[in-house]
Parts: sequence; C-alpha cells; structure tokens
Amino acid sequence: MAISGQHLTLEAFLRLPEQEPALEFKEGKVTQKVSPTGRHSRLQTVLVERLNRFAEPRKLALAFSELRTTFGGASSVPDVAVYRWDRIPVDEQGQVVDTFVEPPDLAVEIASPGQSTTGLVRRCLWYVANGVQVALLVDPDDESVLVFRAEQAPQALRGPDKLGLGDVLPGFELSAQEIFDSLRVY
Amino acid sequence: MAISGQHLTLEAFLRLPEQEPALEFKEGKVTQKVSPTGRHSRLQTVLVERLNRFAEPRKLALAFSELRTTFGGASSVPDVAVYRWDRIPVDEQGQVVDTFVEPPDLAVEIASPGQSTTGLVRRCLWYVANGVQVALLVDPDDESVLVFRAEQAPQALRGPDKLGLGDVLPGFELSAQEIFDSLRVY
Repeated sequence: MAISGQHLTLEAFLRLPEQEPALEFKEGKVTQKVSPTGRHSRLQTVLVERLNRFAEPRKLALAFSELRTTFGGASSVPDVAVYRWDRIPVDEQGQVVDTFVEPPDLAVEIASPGQSTTGLVRRCLWYVANGVQVALLVDPDDESVLVFRAEQAPQALRGPDKLGLGDVLPGFELSAQEIFDSLRVY
Repeated sequence: MAISGQHLTLEAFLRLPEQEPALEFKEGKVTQKVSPTGRHSRLQTVLVERLNRFAEPRKLALAFSELRTTFGGASSVPDVAVYRWDRIPVDEQGQVVDTFVEPPDLAVEIASPGQSTTGLVRRCLWYVANGVQVALLVDPDDESVLVFRAEQAPQALRGPDKLGLGDVLPGFELSAQEIFDSLRVY
C-alpha cells in the first residue's frame, strides 16, 4: 500500500521512525506492509522455526523474521530473510549488527488474503535481480510456493513437491504440503 | 475454482457441454473460469483489438478471445490466444477449424478482482512449459504485466515499459501504460 505521494531519498526514508506494520522504500516511494493475519503469522513462524532448527546447529545459516534489509537502492522487510552463516553481519564482539545492508541469500514473502500476489511476484523478481539467491512466494490460498532465482524460470511447487534449496541450505528438505499442513491445528 | 472432486479423463471432459464461464481441465480436475467483470472484459477486448488491428492486415497472426485450446494433456481457455498466421488451423476450405489442439504462440490471462494471481502465474508457467512461446499475466489492480517465456526469468512491466513480442509479432508495440489507460473512459 502506497502511503506517501511525495518522493523521498533513501537516506531520508531511513531516518523515519519505524512503524508497525513496517514501512518499505523503493524508487522514491514509501509503502507499508500488509497487517499480518493468522495464517500469515503462522506460516512465517513455522518457516523461521524449520529453517533455524536445521541451519543453526549446523552453523549453516540464520533465518530472521521481519528484518529490515537495505540494498539495491531500496529498503525492504521480507517476511523471512535467511543469511548463510559466513554472511551474517556481526560487530567486533561477534554480535549480530542492527543494520543489514547486504541482500539475504533467501527471502520469503507470504501472501495475505486480498493482497495482490502480482505485486509480490514483482518483489521476488526484484530480490533475485538485486543479489538475493532464492526468493519464495508462499500463497496459502493457492497452497503453492513459487521459487524464483536470477535469470531462471520460476518453479511452482504444490503438494509433495520439495523446496530445492541446495544452493543456500544443502540438505534442507521441506515440501509445499508440509508448509501448508502447518496451518491445520489438531 | 474447482467444481468437481471427481477425476475425469481428458476425453470425458471434452464430451461435457460447454458452460459459461468456460470449464477447464488439468490433471484430472475440472475448474470453471471466473465470471468476467467490467475491467476484465474491457482489457480483453482492447488487447484482441490492438493485436488484430496490427496483425491481421499484415497476415502475421490472429488473436482469439475465449478460445478453447486442448494441448499438453489439458484443456484451457486463455482470455486471449494468438496464433501466428501459418499456425492458424484451417480446414480444406481455408476456414478456421473449431477444435484447436496446438498451443497458441501467445496466451494472455487477465486477473479478476479477488482472484489468486498466484494461480494465474502457475498457469502462465504451465503454458510456456507446454509449447506456448509467450504468456502474459495482465493485472489491473497492480497495473502491471508479467511476461513469461520458457526457461527464462519473467519480466515485470509497468508504466512506459513496452511488451517485447518480437518473437511472435515483429513490429508490434504496446506499453503497460497504454493497456491500463484503456480502462479510463473520457
């Protein structure tokens, strides 16, 4: 959702106070993320958990939810951002820094009800054109995951189709079905 | 929208009477197209007109709206299907046949309000994986056009970005802006 008709510089945008839902910036325009809903929140949580349960003990990567990332002249807050271990920015004390200015290795966007997924497709295309290795669009209404890589045709995954993330997280396995099954609470 | 839980063969599906909106068939499932709305109808009309105004006098191609096409084991009704002149199926009298069993060169899907565009993205990916040269997803809410080609990253067009359809319709020019401007009636 566009919330400002005025054109801002990236520097001026980054001085704005943080809001909830987060503000984002691209091509001079400020937009606000969609308010998260139940399914969105559940999928975001599950994905971060599944990714970290695999990647953290192996020191392969860390998954962050709602992390501001500023690169490619824009400032975005992917629903999930994954950085491989050696790319996680840390300070001299080895602590994670607050300001991330490198593209994540994996960025995930989760569709909310009534949200234009075409806009999310454009966002995923922008991610992979600007240094993100893999971008995922997870759509609970369609029960499908679109997988984007730079200069490649996207893949559409449903049911038993597995996320092939070997380039980012070798050995990590998750199917579309497992993702959407997490929405069912027994 | 899925309208049947029963699995059918393609042959059994093709014996069903035509309905309005059209029924479609893929992977054993029958679905029904979304009822067209004002903007959808306007965009469909404008695209067919613009394509035919250019392509018909030059004997380059013909654009058909709501044409049933059966190929790749499925039966779909793209909002617009374009066949290059020498691929238009004709009978011995040179008349267009009724049953199209070859993929169009260009297939266009137009998003309707409230429709999952992720499903339309999957459909466009299916088209280009099954012999369609170029598939377009036109989204009036997002005022963007996604352009799909086999084994290539999709392009996202907005504003002055031009459709590059040189491989199908050399010389044809149309920008995203011109497409969506046609929704404004003065």
